[in-house]
Formats: sequence, structure tokens, C-alpha cells
Amino acid sequence: MTITENTTGTCTGYTDRTGAFHAFGDVAAEQQVRADDRGHVFHSWSAQAQINPLPIAAGEGSTFWDYDGNAYLDFSSQLVNLNLGHQHPDLVRAIQEQAGRLATIQPSMANDVRGELARRIAEVAPGDLNSVFFTNGGADANENAVRMARRYTGKHKVLSMYRSYHGNTNTAIALTGDPRRWANQPYADGGVVHFFGPYPYRSEFHSDSPEQEAQRALEHLEHVIALEGPATIAGILIETVVGTNGVLVPPPGYLHGVRELCDKYGIVYIADEVMVGFGRIGEWFAVDAYGVVPDLITFAKGVNSGYVPLGGVIISDAIAHFFDDVSFQGGLTYSGHPLACAAGVATFEVFERDGILEHVRDLGARVVEPTLNGWLATHPSVGDVRGQGLFWALELVRDRETHEPLVPFNASGADAAPMNEVAAACKAAGVWPFTHFNRMHVAPPLVITEDELRRGLDAYDAALTVADRYASAS
Amino acid sequence: MTITENTTGTCTGYTDRTGAFHAFGDVAAEQQVRADDRGHVFHSWSAQAQINPLPIAAGEGSTFWDYDGNAYLDFSSQLVNLNLGHQHPDLVRAIQEQAGRLATIQPSMANDVRGELARRIAEVAPGDLNSVFFTNGGADANENAVRMARRYTGKHKVLSMYRSYHGNTNTAIALTGDPRRWANQPYADGGVVHFFGPYPYRSEFHSDSPEQEAQRALEHLEHVIALEGPATIAGILIETVVGTNGVLVPPPGYLHGVRELCDKYGIVYIADEVMVGFGRIGEWFAVDAYGVVPDLITFAKGVNSGYVPLGGVIISDAIAHFFDDVSFQGGLTYSGHPLACAAGVATFEVFERDGILEHVRDLGARVVEPTLNGWLATHPSVGDVRGQGLFWALELVRDRETHEPLVPFNASGADAAPMNEVAAACKAAGVWPFTHFNRMHVAPPLVITEDELRRGLDAYDAALTVADRYASAS
Repeated sequence: MTITENTTGTCTGYTDRTGAFHAFGDVAAEQQVRADDRGHVFHSWSAQAQINPLPIAAGEGSTFWDYDGNAYLDFSSQLVNLNLGHQHPDLVRAIQEQAGRLATIQPSMANDVRGELARRIAEVAPGDLNSVFFTNGGADANENAVRMARRYTGKHKVLSMYRSYHGNTNTAIALTGDPRRWANQPYADGGVVHFFGPYPYRSEFHSDSPEQEAQRALEHLEHVIALEGPATIAGILIETVVGTNGVLVPPPGYLHGVRELCDKYGIVYIADEVMVGFGRIGEWFAVDAYGVVPDLITFAKGVNSGYVPLGGVIISDAIAHFFDDVSFQGGLTYSGHPLACAAGVATFEVFERDGILEHVRDLGARVVEPTLNGWLATHPSVGDVRGQGLFWALELVRDRETHEPLVPFNASGADAAPMNEVAAACKAAGVWPFTHFNRMHVAPPLVITEDELRRGLDAYDAALTVADRYASAS
Repeated sequence: MTITENTTGTCTGYTDRTGAFHAFGDVAAEQQVRADDRGHVFHSWSAQAQINPLPIAAGEGSTFWDYDGNAYLDFSSQLVNLNLGHQHPDLVRAIQEQAGRLATIQPSMANDVRGELARRIAEVAPGDLNSVFFTNGGADANENAVRMARRYTGKHKVLSMYRSYHGNTNTAIALTGDPRRWANQPYADGGVVHFFGPYPYRSEFHSDSPEQEAQRALEHLEHVIALEGPATIAGILIETVVGTNGVLVPPPGYLHGVRELCDKYGIVYIADEVMVGFGRIGEWFAVDAYGVVPDLITFAKGVNSGYVPLGGVIISDAIAHFFDDVSFQGGLTYSGHPLACAAGVATFEVFERDGILEHVRDLGARVVEPTLNGWLATHPSVGDVRGQGLFWALELVRDRETHEPLVPFNASGADAAPMNEVAAACKAAGVWPFTHFNRMHVAPPLVITEDELRRGLDAYDAALTVADRYASAS
């Protein structure tokens, strides 16, 4: 292990690539990391001269450390992928052992861990979703799910939601319903149509209750289907719980209604569970919480906590068997990568042995939900609280009556200052928050302890006083 | 290590996931692998009921073994990714150590091995290509290179070649110029235009020499630019040596001419080196053999031999600095994955310590080239020989006068039988060949020994007698 803990559990340093241990505060080492990064690493979703990436020296469990030894409790699980936390010993061991056995083998061969992980996934997947096509991540999982739906139905359009994120490759970014799509729109997949999903707090449908929101959102979806033409629509792709764009929990009956519309019109229902699959809301797959069975489920992130890049599509028998004698025209060099799959198999073993799903449900219901709901009474900036398991959003507003957000949609620069101040307050308190637009999310590793969770929530609580200064008293 | 060798160097068994050793011939173990695979693994580019994936038990160096202990000398380096062979001890150790230090950290942070690999790549990349955007593989590398070219130029079309492969996501498959694109064409990236590249053996331009082929292919490319409109063309994407579609080595002056056309018309020159980068032809990057400097180079595979999924784009200073204050609108969860980068850093150390580039040049020039050229005299089925380093193609024909291929373009079923027989003969002789359409490729791991290489070439030599039966005497 990297981490050397003293008797009080504080990490005191890190190991370099030669295996040598360094105490925190090694200025030269940090400067080398910064120089290499600023000199040669081109970063995602950024203006390169306007960022200052923090060098990270070590991580363990729900905490990571910079080179000065500052500890950050990770309330965003990195990019909501680190479900089993940093340096989980079982995952580390599985990778080390598989690296020593057979690091890689081409997709056309059969491989023990590749097959075992596919079987384990099929065993917990709902309904007759029994086959797995492995990819490198969530974007290519969604690309290939759409490819399957199009070939299977012989139709071409795919409907997805505004306020969604589905990945950065061409079809995946076309499916995305947030601003990351905008600059990528020209020549993106022309078969994508966006519709509005349910969002009770900011209803497109002027609804008065979650039930009414579900009903009206389904009417809207059916209208879009009718006006786009059912005979042209191959699939509907939906994040089961919308992730980065708001932890939008589907209201009662919505996903059932989507399933019925798909059946009625011969449309493939694709559930994007890249962020919410593998325990995030206390279920193997989030659809399990709503009792619906999609035709395809896409996954990545939590399948192995991102220790090795891995994603995939879980496929219903009907669609899998369609390709028994029709060639599937998709593939990639690293499909079913053994090293990635070994970390996936270990994930199943940890989940089952340690009762991860039960832990998530318990902490979510007993600690997070009441704490966040309590802030509705104590923080005028908190306009809405929603979530499940260890996946929650606080919607911050200037005015609870009008729901005016704390910062404008897609704010940057000075407009985004209030949210930046909230985030800075969290970091100063040793908690790395997830913030997006006018929201704070709670998405820690699923292995977080109750003490850690309460400490992180206390930091959020304190940081909200910064937001409160911008909010009218309600 | 997985492999237990007896004194004659023969592998006798394999290690399972629990660490237990098994002698080859464990029928139950193989049956479990087959059952999991056939029950739950959905395979790339296949009709699922028409394949019978071979379970692989172990690999070392240039050889892999099935569960019966049959050894296969790997003449295709898996999918031309396994440049340093199976289970290279330095790469295995680097992965094991990095797994124990810090398996993953999000892209927005700075990380020591991420930065070190970016710097090492920049040090060997040509010209002022000094920044690296890391992806999971070659497809998303090409997607992001096109994204950069479009944003940088403000133009939208991208030209790529017929007879090319660039990946399986939407833009990547649209760029592809082989049959894998066909079923994926509707709603693929609409900004792609295909042109003909040089191919002296089957010239589109009725040329008499490689020099004339280069000149005429450049005239053709300039005509396509003129007729598509220079003001609409963001980039030209070319495999420096076309890979799967034929090991098409660019004739003298061609790539220089492409560079000049790109400069003349303000077009970004993107070199796809996913297959040929990192030593395949005896150079860090294949463009080095031709003395040209593209604006962007995409890579994957050989950067770490595919031990952990990794790809990326190497970016010129001009394009990188364009994004200093313009946000780059692309990204992915696993960009710059530490585990993948650690295997990349180890790759540099092995290449330099063991003189891999020199080894490749030596074996290519001294062993492969004379041997294959000799077959032009001894095998009537060998119509053309071409390649460089450890990357060669034999074009098999029925008639050397007409160049009629041994099997039709994109043959399947009975039409493909002659090539299937050739491949089967290689496998029966313990050599796993790379075959595509009417071609056999020579693409072994770069660490192959001279003895192994000669043994594999002997198997190809013998298998060609199968092809000769279909060929007219010349």
C-alpha cells in the first residue's frame, strides 16, 4: 500500500514510482509533477491556460492527499466512479494478480475473467439481460448500444433528454443534453432528438406533484414520438437517475411509462447506468429500484471503480439473439480487457462480502436524507433536496419562491462566483465537493464510514452559509 | 509470472485466479471458460452463433497457449498492439507497483506518471508536438483529433482514405474506408469525405512507378480538396502506413506532398499512428521514416502494448496554444489513467534499455524483407510484398498478370475458403497469422527473437503452398 498511517490514522507521505517513501512536503517532487503537467498534459473540458491542476500524491478509502499532506474527503468519488474508494486492497490485489497471469488477450479469444465478469453481471442484471459487450468506458458503451438498437429495429432516430450527459464521442455527445454538446453539434450524429424529462422542481409541464409530473412528462414523450414518427425511432436512451445534470430521480411511474411506450411503438429502451449502476443508489442497477426492465443497460465507472478503464452494454436475449446470424458491426481492441475484468470480478466479491448495497441504503436513508432535508429549514439557499442511496443533490437558489438559481445556467467567470465560493469553503474544510451549475451533489465512495460521511456533511452545512448570503430569506 | 517453463522452455500450465497452478489439459477449466463465453460474452464484429472463441490459458513473450497446451507463435501481436509481447516483466511490474500506489485519479488533477508519460512522448514526437491529450484507445483519439482540428480551423470537413480503419465510434467509423463502415453509415459523421491514397500494386491512377503513384495520388488529393472546397476542410487524417487494409507503405514524396497541401490550404494534418506508432516499423513514430511533421498524431496500442487501455493525441504547439483561452470541449473520465500511463512509462524504459527500435530495423531488413521477397520467386500466389520493420504484407493472387486476388474483396463464406485454408495451415503449424481479405501480414511482437521469427516465416512459407494451388503459374 501507498499510505503510511501513524497511530492516529493520518497519512504521512507517499511512495514514488521507484518504491521509495517520501514524507509530505517534498517541494521538488511536487514541482516536477506540476512542470510535467503544465508542460505536456492537455486536459479535458478546459481552457488550458486557465487551469491549475492540483498534484495528488496519495489516496486511500474515501480520502486523497496533495503533496503538502492536505487531506480531502472525496464527496464526488472522483468523477462519480470510485465506488469502492481509493486503493481498495481487494481490487489492488486482483489487478496485481491478473497482471502477473495474463494482462491482455484479444477480444476474439475466450478468457476466464472476461467470461466470469460477464456471467456475474448477467446474474444481477434485471430480466433476460444475459449478454455483455465490453467497451472501454461509458461513451463507447452508449455508441454501441445505439448501434445495436438501430440494427435490431432497422430504424434510425434515438431520443434522449435535455439535461443529460452520455459521453464525448460523436454519437454520445450528440445524445448529450447539456452545454458540452453545443460546440460539438455540427456533424454530430444526425439521428438524435432531445425531449424533456420529468423535473418536478423546474417542471416543463407546470405540474403540481411528482405523480402529475410523471404523467405529463409521459404525455410529452408520446407527443414527441408521434411527431418524430414511431416508424423512425430506434431507441430511447435515458439515465435512470439523471447524474451530473441534477440527480433527477424519476417520479413514480415515469420509467414504467417509458417501458410501455417503448413496447407500444417497437422502440428499444436503453438505460444509461454509467453513473448510477453498481450500487450508487443502493441497487446493482438503478432500474431495480423502479421495477422496470430495459432492453439494454450501459455501464462503466462503478463496475470496477475505474481502476482500469472499462464499460459495456448488457443485452437482452431478444437483441443478443438477433445478432446470432447477423454480424454485429462494432468492436474495439480492448473489448473485454482481462485486467479491467479482473477488477470487475473483485468488485462483485467485495460488494457481496461487505454488504455494500445495504451499507449504501442504510447511510442514505438514515444519515444523508434527514440531514439534507433538515437544511431546507436552516439554509435559505437550499431550494430542493433529492436523491437516493449515496447520490443526492442540493439545488441552491437565490429565491425559494421563484426558484431563481444561485448562479445562472452554465455560468462561468464572475457569474459563477457564488458557487466557486461554496466549493472553496468545502475544500478549505478538507472536503472535495461535487458542484455543477447551481447544485452541490453528495456522491462519496460507497465504502465511506458513517463518521466520514457526517464530517463531510458538516463541511457542506458550513459551506452553505456562504450560499445563504446570496439568498433572500424565505 | 504465469508461465512455468521446463528445461526445454516449454510452458506446462497456467495459473488460475486464485493463484493455483494447473497443468494443461484441465478439461473442466476450459469448459467453464467456454460456457461463460458462449453464455454471456458478446463479441466484436461477429455473428454471435457463428464463432467459437478459443480459450487462451497463458502467454509469454511472442507465444500464447490454449488450455490443451498448444502453443501459438503470435504473428499478429494480438490486434497489432502487443509490441512488447505477452507478460513483459517490466510492464507487469510497473502495473503492479502503480496499482499499489494509486490506481486512478481524475483527469482534472495533476499526476506524476501521467505527466511523465506525456513528457516522454513529447520528447520523441517530431517537431513541436509537445502536448498530449490521453484517451482510452485509438477510436476516441481520432474523435478528439478531429474535434481539435474542427475547432482550431473553424471548418468542418475531414478527408480520409478509402482502405483505412480509424475506430468504431461514430466519427471514427465514418472516417474508416473499409466495409466495417457500411452498416454504420446512416447518421455517421456527415463531415467526412473519402479519397484514394497511393497503392502502387492496385493503382487508381494507372501509374508505372512508386514515384509516379505518389505524384498522381497528390494531384488526386488536390482535386478532391478543390472540389470539396478548401474553405470547408478542417483536416486530413491518414494512417502513416495503412494498417489492416494492406500495409500500404507511402511511396516516396507522398507524405511530404500531403504536408504541403495542408499548409497550402490551411488544413490540419492528422497522422493516425494507432497501429504503426511506438516501434512497429522501427521508429518511434512512422512519420519519422518519411521526415514529415504532422499537426496531430493519434496513438494507442503500442504505447503500452495494450496492457491497460490507453490512447491519445499528440498536439502541436500552435493547436495546443489555441486552446489556452478557448475551452477544449472534449473529455473523458479515464483521460490520463495512471495505471495505463505507468505501463507507458515502462514501455519507454524497455525500448531504450533493450534497443527495441534497432532490433526491429535489423530483423526487418536482414530477415523479413529478403525472405518475403524470395517468395516472389518460389510462390506463384504471392503477388506483392511490401512493408518495413516488423510490419509486412503479402498480397496473395490467383493470377500475377491480372493481380486477381486469391479471394474477392470482403469475401465471406465459401468465397473466403482459400484464405481460411492458409490461416488454418499456419495455426496447425503453431503460428497465429494475421490475415485480411487476400493478404497475410507479418506483425509479430517487436521483442520476437530471430529464431522465433524464422520459425514463423517458415510456417508462412509452408502455408503458402496451400495458396499456390489456387494460383496460375506465372
